[in-house]
Amino acid sequence: MAAMACTSAASKTVFTPRLGSVKSVKSVRSVQLTSAFHGQSVARVSQVARFKSADVVSKGAGRRAVVVCKAADGKTVVIGLAADSGCGKSTFMRRLTSVFGGAASPPKGGNPDSNTLISDTTTVICLDDYHSLDRYGRKEAAVTALDPRANNFDLMYEQVKALKEGKSVEKPIYNHVTGLLDAPETIHPPKILVIEGLHPMYDERVRELLDFSIYLDISDDVKFAWKIQRDMAERGHSLESIKASIAARKPDFDAFIDPQKQYADVVIQVLPTQLIPDDNEGKVLRVRMVMKEGVPFFEPVYLFDEGSTISWIPCGRKLTCSYPGIKFFYGPDTYYGNEVSVLEMDGQFDKLDELIYVESHLSNISTKFYGEITQQMLKHADFPGSNNGTGLFQTICGLKIRGVYERILANQNNAATLESAKA
Amino acid sequence: MAAMACTSAASKTVFTPRLGSVKSVKSVRSVQLTSAFHGQSVARVSQVARFKSADVVSKGAGRRAVVVCKAADGKTVVIGLAADSGCGKSTFMRRLTSVFGGAASPPKGGNPDSNTLISDTTTVICLDDYHSLDRYGRKEAAVTALDPRANNFDLMYEQVKALKEGKSVEKPIYNHVTGLLDAPETIHPPKILVIEGLHPMYDERVRELLDFSIYLDISDDVKFAWKIQRDMAERGHSLESIKASIAARKPDFDAFIDPQKQYADVVIQVLPTQLIPDDNEGKVLRVRMVMKEGVPFFEPVYLFDEGSTISWIPCGRKLTCSYPGIKFFYGPDTYYGNEVSVLEMDGQFDKLDELIYVESHLSNISTKFYGEITQQMLKHADFPGSNNGTGLFQTICGLKIRGVYERILANQNNAATLESAKA
Repeated sequence: MAAMACTSAASKTVFTPRLGSVKSVKSVRSVQLTSAFHGQSVARVSQVARFKSADVVSKGAGRRAVVVCKAADGKTVVIGLAADSGCGKSTFMRRLTSVFGGAASPPKGGNPDSNTLISDTTTVICLDDYHSLDRYGRKEAAVTALDPRANNFDLMYEQVKALKEGKSVEKPIYNHVTGLLDAPETIHPPKILVIEGLHPMYDERVRELLDFSIYLDISDDVKFAWKIQRDMAERGHSLESIKASIAARKPDFDAFIDPQKQYADVVIQVLPTQLIPDDNEGKVLRVRMVMKEGVPFFEPVYLFDEGSTISWIPCGRKLTCSYPGIKFFYGPDTYYGNEVSVLEMDGQFDKLDELIYVESHLSNISTKFYGEITQQMLKHADFPGSNNGTGLFQTICGLKIRGVYERILANQNNAATLESAKA
Repeated sequence: MAAMACTSAASKTVFTPRLGSVKSVKSVRSVQLTSAFHGQSVARVSQVARFKSADVVSKGAGRRAVVVCKAADGKTVVIGLAADSGCGKSTFMRRLTSVFGGAASPPKGGNPDSNTLISDTTTVICLDDYHSLDRYGRKEAAVTALDPRANNFDLMYEQVKALKEGKSVEKPIYNHVTGLLDAPETIHPPKILVIEGLHPMYDERVRELLDFSIYLDISDDVKFAWKIQRDMAERGHSLESIKASIAARKPDFDAFIDPQKQYADVVIQVLPTQLIPDDNEGKVLRVRMVMKEGVPFFEPVYLFDEGSTISWIPCGRKLTCSYPGIKFFYGPDTYYGNEVSVLEMDGQFDKLDELIYVESHLSNISTKFYGEITQQMLKHADFPGSNNGTGLFQTICGLKIRGVYERILANQNNAATLESAKA
């Protein structure tokens, strides 16, 4: 069910493929609903998309809107997001799907404990679903969920490959409530498939399928501070038990999770602030976005002057910030032997003015209009990290992923056009 | 002899007042040569200046070039430059006059030991000429040249005031060779009068006459390194005698010279580099340009983002620099209770690419075309400091002074036009 050809349509249907929404599909033939127009010639669809919904309906233009879609080799773009549990992956996913314009929700009518999130454009699957051992099996075998032996990489590879090729799959569900493996759910190939979890880059075959990859790297200090906040303050755990649980997890984490960051196209590092001496509250954060150079369809974000080294305190005559202020850093570096660019933000925003001011000085941010980052951040001001670098860099990552996706698609369409010109 | 009125002219004469040069003046009437068109209505002259020399000559347009200059209240713009002796004032002056386009030379046919330098636009007088005590008098009274008692501030004030009002003066000459006061020389009011020396901002009355002021602040470490270089390496003095001479000079310097920097619109600080740990060779320099905010007709130079704090290492992907590299800093600060902006350069340039790259990232530099700083620096590549911040900031100062001068003039002309419209 990869590239479907819509031949003609006379209706009030309006496609807004960038936002991935279909207002009405009643009389459109040959449209694959579940995959939200996956595989259509986006170049053709874009022409239709120039008519706004209201125009089409009120002016009756819908009756003459003839959609002739050509089959294209549009394949699902696959994004990997690696991080430990409790590190803000779900917030990141909400920011990402928001950039694409739709709200994400679990598959309708399915298992209420499904870990999958589907929006018009994006399907996010949780790699915990590929656990080969459930909670009891792990206990019995004395392995953690971080251990590759508790995960089925063959199935992960097969299913991600199938989705990438436009085929639906029956994916297992790991039930986080019961700790058991539930009956599988059908996943249709979306425009963008995000695989998030502990091991998206662990298996070489899966890694090869990724069009773009991100590693959320929370430093031990911050992880500890966050766990204290959540498990001690909110759940009443003792400091000792928190320390013990972190210590128990660490060897497997270091052996199986952490090494994946060398493969990531972007690593978001979350560290304690350097603006407050000896701070270990984990409230004010220094967040670094380490961006690999030479990744296809991806240009690292930069501040002021590409390729040079800059530190910038925007607080001054035009912008006044409260203690401890905000400090940015940008510069080239190497990371696991790869050439990278690093963008860093230490501190937090007091208010909107600061964000738009910062946004206006960043380049290569893949926005479609001035202030898009600020708009996105404002829209989700209640999400964790909206006032610091985690929110900012997650939002930027979302925009960059959209950019990568659109360029891959444009590239595929160019190739398809060339192919059809030859035929 | 202030504002002279040129009534009409039919000739091939072309005025290029911005550069201060006169190609031919044969048939232009009523033009005051020595003061190089001082006091003319620049607005009028500018109209003529739109014709390029070649155009006028080849197309015969010169015959219809009728210059009708109205008297304007153009007064001499006075610039003060304070610095200790041996601190690069003369190099600075050569860079400054070069920005205005003419070569500076001592008054023709005068005392060969005159300290004055005259170019088409600029006259530079040395304040040593206002010594009231000659070398022997100072010895007798046991005062240094730094001591106000060895200087005649009344005369300095009267003569600078007269020149500013467009009146010629008979200025004494302090003969640096003989140490005596020679017979005076006539100084005509130029477009720009630079008074350079130890005390341009010491006397409040003189200070009030300054339209713009600069203080060259060489740190003790660098001064010492330079003196070692000159007096020990080149003149064979002993280290002990150099130390003694610096120590002897220091109390008066601290009492009478140094305090002037609080009044300067721009202070150029020359410090040892911070790029080489414990460097005290004085070869690699960290140079800071401290620019006062709120000075009429003067906007401080900035790097990337006005009013914020930035450090910038331009060496990276686009620019490769040899050890120890180059580092810039820019940011707001306070200096003697005044709000200032600081631009700093540490390190030195290897070659042209670096300078044009740096120039392209600076703003408010008062250039007339892209690359003017680089062109000026290249033109005088053999001057001391051409590869570091002293040369760069002296050149920028020259451009800023030109900017101040032109804006003062434009302001005067606007006032004159308003006045004549009222009449």
